[in-house]
Amino acid sequence: MERIAIIGLGLIGGSLGLDLTRQGHPVVGIARRVETAKAALAMGAATEAGTDLALVAGAEVVFICTPIDTVVATAEAIAPHLSKGAVITDVASVKGELVPAIEALWSDFVGGHPMAGKAEAGLAVAETGLFQDRPYVLTPTAATNPEALERVRAIASSLGANLCQCHPAQHDRAVAWISHLPVMVSSSLILACQGETDPAILTLAQTLASSGFQDTSRVGGGVPDLGTLMARHNRAAVLDALTQYQYQLERLKTLIAAEDWDAVHNTLIRSQTARPAYLA
Amino acid sequence: MERIAIIGLGLIGGSLGLDLTRQGHPVVGIARRVETAKAALAMGAATEAGTDLALVAGAEVVFICTPIDTVVATAEAIAPHLSKGAVITDVASVKGELVPAIEALWSDFVGGHPMAGKAEAGLAVAETGLFQDRPYVLTPTAATNPEALERVRAIASSLGANLCQCHPAQHDRAVAWISHLPVMVSSSLILACQGETDPAILTLAQTLASSGFQDTSRVGGGVPDLGTLMARHNRAAVLDALTQYQYQLERLKTLIAAEDWDAVHNTLIRSQTARPAYLA
Repeated sequence: MERIAIIGLGLIGGSLGLDLTRQGHPVVGIARRVETAKAALAMGAATEAGTDLALVAGAEVVFICTPIDTVVATAEAIAPHLSKGAVITDVASVKGELVPAIEALWSDFVGGHPMAGKAEAGLAVAETGLFQDRPYVLTPTAATNPEALERVRAIASSLGANLCQCHPAQHDRAVAWISHLPVMVSSSLILACQGETDPAILTLAQTLASSGFQDTSRVGGGVPDLGTLMARHNRAAVLDALTQYQYQLERLKTLIAAEDWDAVHNTLIRSQTARPAYLA
Repeated sequence: MERIAIIGLGLIGGSLGLDLTRQGHPVVGIARRVETAKAALAMGAATEAGTDLALVAGAEVVFICTPIDTVVATAEAIAPHLSKGAVITDVASVKGELVPAIEALWSDFVGGHPMAGKAEAGLAVAETGLFQDRPYVLTPTAATNPEALERVRAIASSLGANLCQCHPAQHDRAVAWISHLPVMVSSSLILACQGETDPAILTLAQTLASSGFQDTSRVGGGVPDLGTLMARHNRAAVLDALTQYQYQLERLKTLIAAEDWDAVHNTLIRSQTARPAYLA
């Protein structure tokens, strides 16, 4: 059983810890706050825990599970403590910037992105089996050591995740479409409604909103911190996706303005027909 | 117990019939197809049923539950068969066009819109208690007979619905925001993703799509017929809502392009803060 270190004990880091300790791995959990480290130990998400990054010494595989904007700095900080041959992987939801930056710091790095978000964040909502049947993307490059890749792949596979492999840039474009664009689309829907200038109509709209509005607005009503990080670290792909989206929306609006109802109907049939390919 | 006629035995008409027969009302169900009329009788959604509009004769309250684009023609067709004092109401999801058109045909008309859609349509998915705790909008005008309004109000109230009253134009603007705009926003999201020109990235996006994408795309992947009718019969309000939406989206895109992350964060906080007012 490999000795594993997990840095960042939130939903993802904590859930990884719960699964890996249950498999019998020695798991060192490292958190910013001592309370989080203690809680992770108490709930069995780590077999040893603390706040000092030097605790990674002796780990064979390190999972960096901190927010996107601190992953590279964390890799830089732990490199001096690691033994040669130790493998670093991360779980950040954007890969294009991070992967080359960490590869430059540590040769045995494999970018990863387990897609297992929840509405809430933090160790308190960590759970066993979180990754079961969920996609887990690995983003090796020409520089990736095949042995390091195989090691991370084996661990991800042991979590019951559906493994998937692609280039960091492909990953970032794909998640721009299905994860980052929906946040912007959904947030703008809420703010458009808020732009209603007649207070009686706004109140009526709020009263009449039902499951259709609630579903469409859900991700736009969620975590602003994460949404901002997505846009910031995947800016080019998000802007491309927004441009294509604006084109589709303008096209549909033009058809409605022109009263071309056959074409509006055809547009809605195309979206209906396309959607099932996106469902699990 | 009033004698009630229901024309159009789909989800709404059938569910109304199930509740009203259970209350002890004699309910005449009228469908286009004889099979539907027989099925409604068999499941207890009517106490008498057939395909002839003349069956409305003797009804004290008539619910027109046909698709939006046939409501006025149906009112016109039944008027010669009705006794003076009979009340007509409808359940169409757009009111601005229909209400004056039917008022011109029949003085005792009250526009209505029970908001109780489901993903599927048709008598097969009709159910008792569908209207319980759901909004039921009535749209009286200066021309509405107060006694007719009171009669429809009493029946809607007996279904356990949350009654709500406003002008037809206010109704149409409110539903443009929370029901019709989301369909266009959500359909365009699916079609934007479909615009990805690299097949490997498209397949990856489809594989990685999870609950966030699925929720945001749900109403855009639904009933194209109804979506087209919404746009057609509520065109001005839908176009206004789309214009306001495009403004919000362009604003957010400009902030991302300008790398103004504080403003992006603030935008996402505003949508997060606004959303709870739209939840039941």
